[in-house]
Formats: sequence, structure tokens, C-alpha cells
Amino acid sequence: MDSVKLVEMGPRDGLQNEPALVPAAIKIELVERLADCGFAYIEAASFVSPRRIPQMADSSGVLTGIRRREGVVYSALTPNLQGLQAALAAGADEVAVFTAASERFCQRNINCSVAESLERFAPVLQLAHERGVRVRGYVSTVLGCPYEGNIAPAAVARVAGALYRLGCHEISLGDTIGTGTPRAAVAMLSAVRQEVPLVRLAAHFHDTYGQALANLYALLEQGLRIIDSSVAGLGGCPYAHGATGNVASEDVVYLLHGLGLETGVDLDRLVATGRWVSLQLGRENGSKTGRAWNG
Amino acid sequence: MDSVKLVEMGPRDGLQNEPALVPAAIKIELVERLADCGFAYIEAASFVSPRRIPQMADSSGVLTGIRRREGVVYSALTPNLQGLQAALAAGADEVAVFTAASERFCQRNINCSVAESLERFAPVLQLAHERGVRVRGYVSTVLGCPYEGNIAPAAVARVAGALYRLGCHEISLGDTIGTGTPRAAVAMLSAVRQEVPLVRLAAHFHDTYGQALANLYALLEQGLRIIDSSVAGLGGCPYAHGATGNVASEDVVYLLHGLGLETGVDLDRLVATGRWVSLQLGRENGSKTGRAWNG
Repeated sequence: MDSVKLVEMGPRDGLQNEPALVPAAIKIELVERLADCGFAYIEAASFVSPRRIPQMADSSGVLTGIRRREGVVYSALTPNLQGLQAALAAGADEVAVFTAASERFCQRNINCSVAESLERFAPVLQLAHERGVRVRGYVSTVLGCPYEGNIAPAAVARVAGALYRLGCHEISLGDTIGTGTPRAAVAMLSAVRQEVPLVRLAAHFHDTYGQALANLYALLEQGLRIIDSSVAGLGGCPYAHGATGNVASEDVVYLLHGLGLETGVDLDRLVATGRWVSLQLGRENGSKTGRAWNG
Repeated sequence: MDSVKLVEMGPRDGLQNEPALVPAAIKIELVERLADCGFAYIEAASFVSPRRIPQMADSSGVLTGIRRREGVVYSALTPNLQGLQAALAAGADEVAVFTAASERFCQRNINCSVAESLERFAPVLQLAHERGVRVRGYVSTVLGCPYEGNIAPAAVARVAGALYRLGCHEISLGDTIGTGTPRAAVAMLSAVRQEVPLVRLAAHFHDTYGQALANLYALLEQGLRIIDSSVAGLGGCPYAHGATGNVASEDVVYLLHGLGLETGVDLDRLVATGRWVSLQLGRENGSKTGRAWNG
């Protein structure tokens, strides 16, 4: 049976962008619940500057506090060598680096050019590989940039190809501001797969304009089989102006099961987890399937 | 340029399913604003039993109260001859009848079998045609029924074909409970187009599980070019358990324009109208594009 690899982003990309500071105990329980749902890959922590992103300051405690489940990869975002060392010390199974397809977004987000970001990643990848740890690469703004507007597919392909040649085993293509639509997504993927094999590519879409599932469906039709999502659509209040939560895992799983694609995820449990975490955070549930699901 | 015909359902299928009783003056302003947005087809009223659906009891007043805009079709739902006569007296440009693909849904919704519903429509269609008024046909539960579960594409094709042969010029295929996913939608359309020409078919999808845009994109890829939607996703509180609003017009227009398909609708004005009506109804805006749009 045809299947899709899901990468659950809620504990990291989700909580990192929530206004509330979430206690480590809740984060740990969230990760454990997600593993119990059947996710085999969970991004659980981020070793970024605690001054810039206080939400992730307790990442070491979270990563070491998780009751590990056999067969699940617990990964962490590591922008530099210092972050990587902390992630390795805390027992991250895999790490991730991030840059952008847009120069101006890269400058504003991580204070360097895209080329400089790639140079910074070289020693991160080298040390990670010495320790036998795989590295995932994120490319932001692949379908639009808040400063530059439309992004040329060739620009995305260039950055994705560079990350792949640097040694990233998987490249996750982020529609950071959620402005993409299906034909643009297909054009972008067509350019990127000239540089990176399709089996190494993930779609990381935000649902800001409600387009994420349509875009994912378009890329599934092209053969893409790795999708990033966040339980309950965590990441930014879903009802605020310009909210930019990740596409909700529940909606993605509903789509995939409807398409006859296997995920390994139990949707009943996932819906329960999304409702639980929404309650913990005092937020509306950002998943339509999560709100409507009745078993 | 390739274009899509949009059928705006907010004033009828939307408001009919809102808990609040909306004053006629607001309904009239809503219809006028939607015409100003560029919609050329607006379902504005419903001549059903006011005991069963009190929200629509003022339909004559609404339809006669609208300042008409040249080139816009103002339609009304008319389940029977009595409704048709009232709709014609109030100046409806076009009318619509509705049945279902599911026997049990038909029984519970309009208290007769599907075959009996078709018999009832025959005199409605005859009188409408004598008056030179076109009739649209709705088929509910085309991708799932709350009582019967999955619905066979052949069952949908049978009812759609019967409505078409009765004289309906357009058949609108409703995923009433929003449970459909793209491959099921494509299979359903493939069966129906054996009975009804594709150019006569509309997709009427509810976004209960967040699947509507993915399903619409799948059918657009098959060549379908008529879509029903509701401004602000009107129809049932969008955040209640099992809410079943129509897919939001703003999200559909965003998708279509992104695909390079012309709609004639001004998205800035549409977003403003969605925000206005949400405020009038004291409800959250059910459109993600409506919440995020910044011009």
C-alpha cells in the first residue's frame, strides 16, 4: 500500500509560534501523546537563542524528559554548532537546519545572506554526520515572501539543491506565509526535483489562506510522499489577522486516509490529542477535522 | 481566459443555517454588496415552509427589496408549486429544486423518497419553463450521508441524470456533510458526467473537515467550471462541533485567481463584505483568506 511519511511539527514549529509560554511538562506530554498516535517522526525541540525564542528555552529538558518510544525519531532544530552540541547532548535522533529561498527573508529571519547561511551549516552537517546523526534542511518562503512577494521556482531549486549537496538527507519546502496555490506549488516542485530526488522532498505548508490541503493534494498527485504538519494547526492564533499556523495534522491525515494513503497515525487518538493540547493552551482548535470528528 | 462561474450561496444556504434570525434589511444589504463584489449569480431567498425554516420567512420582502444590478441573476429555492408561485411573484430570475442521492437523507430532509421528490418537481419545472424561468437542481449527500455513510457514484449519477432529463439546466452536486476527499470526488464526477454534460455541473462543497478546496481543485482539474460557495463560510457556526458551513467564497476566489481562472469577483470587496456580515451576525469569520487578507 502506498504511504506518506508525516513529520509532526506541533511541539516545535507549532509551540514556537504560540503566544503562550508552555510548561515543559505539557510539551513532554504532547510529544509522548503524538508518539502514541503513531507519528514516527516528531520535531520536539529547537536549540535556538532563548533570547530570541523564549518558548524553546527548555528544549534540553523536554528532549531528555520524553519517555522514548521505540522506532520514533525525535528531532531538533539546530541553527549552528552550539545548538547542535546541545541537541546531541540532549539525545536528539536527528537535527535540522533552516534557510530561505528569499534573500530578504533570510536577512530578517537569521541575519545573514542565503549563501552565508549555507556556509554556517557546513560544520553543523560535518559534526552531525561524524556522530551518525542525519540532518534535515528547511527552505522557507518557497511560494511567497512577505518582503519580496513571488519567489521564482529556480531560486527555490538553487537553495534546495545546495542543502542537498551539503548533505541534508531530506529537504522540507516551506510555504511560510501560506500564499501558494496548487499550480504554483507544482511549478515549484517541478523545478526543485531537477536538483533533489523527489523521495527526499517534503512539503511544509501553512494554512493562512486555507490553501494548504489543495496544495498538498496537488503535490501528492506529483508523487511527493513526505508532509510536515502540526496537531491542531498549532502555531499562531488561528483566528487572528494574518495567523500563520502549520496545516493541521488532523486535516492532513483525514485527506491522506481518504486518498487511500497509509500514514500509521490513528486519527481518533490524534483528534483527542489536538483537543487536549488546545485546551491546555486555551486556544481554539485550529483543525476543522479536529472540531468536527465524531469517531 | 479560462473562467469559473461562481454561485454565491451566503444569503440562502448560509443564513438558512445560521442560528441567528437576520433582519431583512441586513439580508438585502448583503445581497447588494455581493452583487457589487462582482457575483453574477446570487441565491437570495428560499420559499420553504416558514415553520420549518423561520430564517427564510421574509424571502418575498428580501427579493422585492433588493436594488437590482444589471446582469445579476437573483435566484430562490422553491421546493414546490406554492413556493415557485411566491418566488415568481417576488421576481426571482431563476429557481432551484433540491433532492438527495441518499434515500434516508431525502426521507428525513423532505419527507419523501427520491423518486417522489422528482415527481413533485415535474409541475414546478413545467410552470417555471412556461414563465421562461430556468431551474437549477441540487443533489445533496453526493459524497456521504449522515445516515447511510458512503454513497455510490452510480446513485448520484442516477439522481443527477433524472433532474437533468426533467429539465434542470444545471445540477449542483452537494457534499452536504463535507466528508468527501479528492479521489472520491473525482470518481463521483466521472459517474455523473456519463448522465449530465460537464458544463451543466456545479460543485457545492461544505468545508466541515477542511477538505473542500482540495476537492474543488481536483474537480477543476477534471474541467468542472461552476462552484457554489458562501461569503465568510456562512452556514452553521464554523467553530462548533460538526459545523457544516459552505466553503468560504473568499478562499475559493483566492484559489481560482491563483490558478489563473477568472471569476469576475473583486477579492478586496469580497473580503470586506465577509468581515461586514460576520460582524453583523456576531460570528467569527469562517474564511481563512477573509481573516488573513491584507489587500
